[in-house]
Amino acid sequence: MKVALAFSGGLDTSWCVPVLREMGHEIVTVTVDVGGFTPAEIDEIRERSAALGVTEHVFVDASEAFFDEMIRFLIAGNVLRGGTYPLCVGAERSLQAREVAKVAQAVGAEAIGHGCTAAGNDQFRFETALRTLAPDLVILAPVRDQAPARAAQLALLSANGIDFPAQKAAYSINSGLWGVTIGGEETTGTDRTIPESAWQRTRGALDTLKPATQHILGFEQGIPASLDGVKMSPIEVIRAVDELAASYGLGRGIHLGETILGIKGRVAFEAPAASVIIPAHRELEKLTLTKRQISMKDAVAAMYGEWVHEGLATEPAARHAEALFIDSQKHVTGEVHFELRTGSLFFTGVTSPYSLHAASRAVYGEAVGEWTPDDARGFGRLYGLSGILHARTEVKP
Amino acid sequence: MKVALAFSGGLDTSWCVPVLREMGHEIVTVTVDVGGFTPAEIDEIRERSAALGVTEHVFVDASEAFFDEMIRFLIAGNVLRGGTYPLCVGAERSLQAREVAKVAQAVGAEAIGHGCTAAGNDQFRFETALRTLAPDLVILAPVRDQAPARAAQLALLSANGIDFPAQKAAYSINSGLWGVTIGGEETTGTDRTIPESAWQRTRGALDTLKPATQHILGFEQGIPASLDGVKMSPIEVIRAVDELAASYGLGRGIHLGETILGIKGRVAFEAPAASVIIPAHRELEKLTLTKRQISMKDAVAAMYGEWVHEGLATEPAARHAEALFIDSQKHVTGEVHFELRTGSLFFTGVTSPYSLHAASRAVYGEAVGEWTPDDARGFGRLYGLSGILHARTEVKP
Amino acid sequence: MKVALAFSGGLDTSWCVPVLREMGHEIVTVTVDVGGFTPAEIDEIRERSAALGVTEHVFVDASEAFFDEMIRFLIAGNVLRGGTYPLCVGAERSLQAREVAKVAQAVGAEAIGHGCTAAGNDQFRFETALRTLAPDLVILAPVRDQAPARAAQLALLSANGIDFPAQKAAYSINSGLWGVTIGGEETTGTDRTIPESAWQRTRGALDTLKPATQHILGFEQGIPASLDGVKMSPIEVIRAVDELAASYGLGRGIHLGETILGIKGRVAFEAPAASVIIPAHRELEKLTLTKRQISMKDAVAAMYGEWVHEGLATEPAARHAEALFIDSQKHVTGEVHFELRTGSLFFTGVTSPYSLHAASRAVYGEAVGEWTPDDARGFGRLYGLSGILHARTEVKP
Amino acid sequence: MKVALAFSGGLDTSWCVPVLREMGHEIVTVTVDVGGFTPAEIDEIRERSAALGVTEHVFVDASEAFFDEMIRFLIAGNVLRGGTYPLCVGAERSLQAREVAKVAQAVGAEAIGHGCTAAGNDQFRFETALRTLAPDLVILAPVRDQAPARAAQLALLSANGIDFPAQKAAYSINSGLWGVTIGGEETTGTDRTIPESAWQRTRGALDTLKPATQHILGFEQGIPASLDGVKMSPIEVIRAVDELAASYGLGRGIHLGETILGIKGRVAFEAPAASVIIPAHRELEKLTLTKRQISMKDAVAAMYGEWVHEGLATEPAARHAEALFIDSQKHVTGEVHFELRTGSLFFTGVTSPYSLHAASRAVYGEAVGEWTPDDARGFGRLYGLSGILHARTEVKP
Repeated sequence: MKVALAFSGGLDTSWCVPVLREMGHEIVTVTVDVGGFTPAEIDEIRERSAALGVTEHVFVDASEAFFDEMIRFLIAGNVLRGGTYPLCVGAERSLQAREVAKVAQAVGAEAIGHGCTAAGNDQFRFETALRTLAPDLVILAPVRDQAPARAAQLALLSANGIDFPAQKAAYSINSGLWGVTIGGEETTGTDRTIPESAWQRTRGALDTLKPATQHILGFEQGIPASLDGVKMSPIEVIRAVDELAASYGLGRGIHLGETILGIKGRVAFEAPAASVIIPAHRELEKLTLTKRQISMKDAVAAMYGEWVHEGLATEPAARHAEALFIDSQKHVTGEVHFELRTGSLFFTGVTSPYSLHAASRAVYGEAVGEWTPDDARGFGRLYGLSGILHARTEVKP
Repeated sequence: MKVALAFSGGLDTSWCVPVLREMGHEIVTVTVDVGGFTPAEIDEIRERSAALGVTEHVFVDASEAFFDEMIRFLIAGNVLRGGTYPLCVGAERSLQAREVAKVAQAVGAEAIGHGCTAAGNDQFRFETALRTLAPDLVILAPVRDQAPARAAQLALLSANGIDFPAQKAAYSINSGLWGVTIGGEETTGTDRTIPESAWQRTRGALDTLKPATQHILGFEQGIPASLDGVKMSPIEVIRAVDELAASYGLGRGIHLGETILGIKGRVAFEAPAASVIIPAHRELEKLTLTKRQISMKDAVAAMYGEWVHEGLATEPAARHAEALFIDSQKHVTGEVHFELRTGSLFFTGVTSPYSLHAASRAVYGEAVGEWTPDDARGFGRLYGLSGILHARTEVKP
Repeated sequence: MKVALAFSGGLDTSWCVPVLREMGHEIVTVTVDVGGFTPAEIDEIRERSAALGVTEHVFVDASEAFFDEMIRFLIAGNVLRGGTYPLCVGAERSLQAREVAKVAQAVGAEAIGHGCTAAGNDQFRFETALRTLAPDLVILAPVRDQAPARAAQLALLSANGIDFPAQKAAYSINSGLWGVTIGGEETTGTDRTIPESAWQRTRGALDTLKPATQHILGFEQGIPASLDGVKMSPIEVIRAVDELAASYGLGRGIHLGETILGIKGRVAFEAPAASVIIPAHRELEKLTLTKRQISMKDAVAAMYGEWVHEGLATEPAARHAEALFIDSQKHVTGEVHFELRTGSLFFTGVTSPYSLHAASRAVYGEAVGEWTPDDARGFGRLYGLSGILHARTEVKP
Repeated sequence: MKVALAFSGGLDTSWCVPVLREMGHEIVTVTVDVGGFTPAEIDEIRERSAALGVTEHVFVDASEAFFDEMIRFLIAGNVLRGGTYPLCVGAERSLQAREVAKVAQAVGAEAIGHGCTAAGNDQFRFETALRTLAPDLVILAPVRDQAPARAAQLALLSANGIDFPAQKAAYSINSGLWGVTIGGEETTGTDRTIPESAWQRTRGALDTLKPATQHILGFEQGIPASLDGVKMSPIEVIRAVDELAASYGLGRGIHLGETILGIKGRVAFEAPAASVIIPAHRELEKLTLTKRQISMKDAVAAMYGEWVHEGLATEPAARHAEALFIDSQKHVTGEVHFELRTGSLFFTGVTSPYSLHAASRAVYGEAVGEWTPDDARGFGRLYGLSGILHARTEVKP
């Protein structure tokens, strides 16, 4: 069969090449970039594919699709798993699977190969998307199915002319537009963090005290639209905020959460852009949306975030949530002012043409103007009445 | 009538004394401390009451009740309004109302007086609790009803022998065990923050880079139980963490939210203790609770937090939520390790005898041990099947 | 001022005419039909207005708007308050208020009058919609504000040439496209039902045993589209199903629920059409939507139904819910088969081109086909793993 | 190994006996009754076991445990899947698994056997409970793993001296305290219902018009406590109501829902008792609980019902839900009056010493008494204010 192999050039996906070839398959390697590769890395991956004897390699830049179909909704829903983790990785997989499937269809492949193991979430994210979007393609997962030892992988690759380092890298890195995850020895337990040297974007940034600086992040209908007064595309804003926030050491965390498998998993992450953009967006929503808009959005976003994280981005209910999110962002236009210090982000103010604060003639705690003292007394007599009636019944029987 | 007047010694509650006396009432002043007053402040309040000619003043220390009946559940529910605000003030009012009512009953008062205005939430928090818990007491709210001008208040008080400063203080401060709120000119709009000089607990703390320090916060069944290995009462832990975190400039924020009145309100706050304890507690829950325990708790806590914030702490449904919270905390015992730097809090690790991470023979991303590759493949074929079937129907009709 | 008076021709709204005139206002009566008036009733109302000396009367047929803006979403959300009540009345008020406001603007009125009392929900439904959609119009509510005694109302109307019966009608009826509510002496308590003679649409229908008949209700994208094979407009389907179901005695109930005021209210209702259409729609959704689509919809609909019922149909969050509902109905096309017997409705089958049941090669309980026994065993070993790990920790400490 | 085999005496579990014996196992058959077996059936099962050469058979009456640990919470949560299905079967399996495990431990068995197939939910319900509660026991599932043909099963059983009918019974019946499920050829599709002759408890009941009768169902703290004034145990109430309601043809339905497997499944059911008790309980809650109590309970019950249905009754979060339910039922004491006619149930009234309706001095729609017209006007000016402010911003930018 012709197989479109999702290919990152790492040990596992490289090993898949000779393994699938020995099974008699013809291989096309496919690399889907969601904003995490440098041009140099993209070249290396292509060269690695060629060195493995693959004659057809396809590179797909899916950064814009990643923003348009995923990140914008993670922002709209203020999605942070466990209050902290912005789905740096989970959100990418479903999209990557789809893009690989598109390539497969374009090049006439009958199968898709992936290098996921049996111990992680990615196998389910990848395969659920594939079975949903390209059900006619066969799925081949040699790493999951054969569980090869590292030594055997190295030997096979060496026999195919590629030498990987004998030592596993101390940290496995997964970099994308919305953040980077870092797994290492420390993250296989729960009591320790990774060393300073393992951080990718914020290394050393907390060691010196930078002077405080002031910034403004602009949104148009919930979409990041400008930084410090300069209009940019959403992806440009994300990259600019990421660099800025990383220089102040922002966005580090360790995500500890339940995996699709049912066990707990732990991984370090850096998401400087997300650590500013999501709370900034939420501040703007506090100004422009009513309490009911916010609580409905929160309830829907809790489900949406779980589905995206758990590889169910293709679930039709996710589309309904997105329809709700789009409708909810019509007034989420304005500017969020923030101050950065080393290790610290503080929102100093927020303004919007749709400000509900400015729309009121009353000022909280200061001035009525929408009501009179009599109105307030009347409101107070009805507000909470049901609990008052409940208390009356307590003494009765 | 004999009136138990909730009394902080400020301008509004002081003004209530001559006003209620002129109406012919006999006044008992009642001060309920929920952990925010210094001994000096408690003395001042008593003296102020005496200076106003009140012959009966009652002081109630309700700090422990505040923890036992309120804060422990705010911790159990990880309650942060809008993702940031730990209900520094809203949570106190219902309890204070109840304590004033108890005093009223003890001293034979037929009425309760309070100094809330018509423009804030507190009037509803106070009165809902009173109408629920002490429905036979008359409620007198001269500030709300008469909306006196400041000059008139000053004049009346001066005529009664008490001189308040002619200028209103630039910032109105509300301090308690769970944090302090700060309102000022800037918080009546949305575009500016308060000046450095207005912060109460963290003033200047961000200006110097302190060396990073390591700490351990211990919980027993969801209740803060130790700091850095020293066992303490929950209130002692809160005070110790508050001081520690404040010295690193942690816990500042500006809460912008919908008030009970329907308008947006904005207030600065410092909650150093809550800004460490709540996320630390949540990290421990990530280790010890299943995904379903967490998502059920989150759903209930969203309602609970709203009710407490909106003065409905006496709502019977809040009791049901508390029953759920207590049951949910049985395994939330363990230690949360964190590192403090100026302006920055980082959770380095978390351990528990009830660790779900340690209970598994599998390691996420590394090793199966609870299942085989075949099991994972089987799981993957069923997982997400309904969305796959849905996609099939898309091409059909 | 020129006042557009919401006018049903009943005692309260009739009494408003001379009262408002005595205040010096010029009156335009406005009757908004949401499908509940017969042509004869519409004539009577017009004549009543003329008899009261009003020279300008406007009739608005808002049935289609009622379906398009309200009922279709109540169906999409399967909205039944307390599991039984299809919002026969609450849903109408916001729409009626808007239509009256439109007329007011068209005829140059500066105020709106309504006849709601101080003891019901309608005052808030009416006024919230008005303040939202037509904030410049003054609201006049003489019945609420003056709380006139019936005798005084009769006397004033008699003096104005209209004689109402001295005895209040035993039952107050509120009829619309989506059902009828019936209030009477029995519904002011909770222990009794109304007598057979008080039912409006199903009177006597339960007394004889009709032979069972079979029917088919068709939906297109969640909208009722046909009955027994005959294509009709949604309103025609509703009227036809209402008549059919009423003849079998279906759709009776007594709604007991918390009012906007905080007290409990009780009212009898007949909603024959809704009692068939909503559960039929839900059966079709069970066939065509995934579990996650259904549970997301249910969560959103619970909020939506509450808001519509409580007079907050103009809340912007309701629009977001509607966007989600519309997206969710794309596959809700098909036919629901049901059998009617006296007093009883039974769904015998349901079919759809989007059937998720038909899309599966497996048959529940009978045949695998999407998976193998090995897959099922593998799934079972991972499914529920987190609870299993939790149980392991129980024996540990 | 010694194997405790969950044993119903049907074809599948009977076939397991020789199969497991041929594998070299020693077998103890265990039958757990959750209220669905007649004494005659219990005898038959014992005899079947003996005829298969099993020397040790254990019968467990778990009806009370079934009520105390399961049904009471399904009632407290008003759990009806898809608005109609009272979990007749799903709720039993986890409990049965636990009871079989207890027997296994008592008789020194090292393994548990069950007869579930690979195509249904029960395998997961059974095994999740076993792995959670008795993780040291080996699980043997020969029917799931070998997928034997019926002919082969018959042949093996015949060789072991037991002759089952060559024809499969037209309908497979699963009877318990909380209802009966009926699967047959019609339920493998979605367009037809089962014939009248296949119904078990209500057969023919809809064919004659019985005179209407009046009844009273009493609850104590949410638990069924009396029928028509006669105090009974909860199980007695359930049996009495079941018989009564069945005689009027109540409680029939067809459940169409998503299975644990992801495909849709369909099954007919009769649950006469549940079809009266759950809505009666809900009516009593409407009278005695506030709106917030009800909406919190509803949100929790939606999760709880899903977990119980999907075999996750052992999930620790289910215990938290039960703690909430117990707390919520303290006031759910009172009497629900209902009228039965052929095919029809109507709630005529409801009374309680904890009635919130009776606790109010106001009567909905009739009389204020808790507030004045001025209070209502004041309330109305604040109620819905946030949506009004939102509308103001719409015209601005």
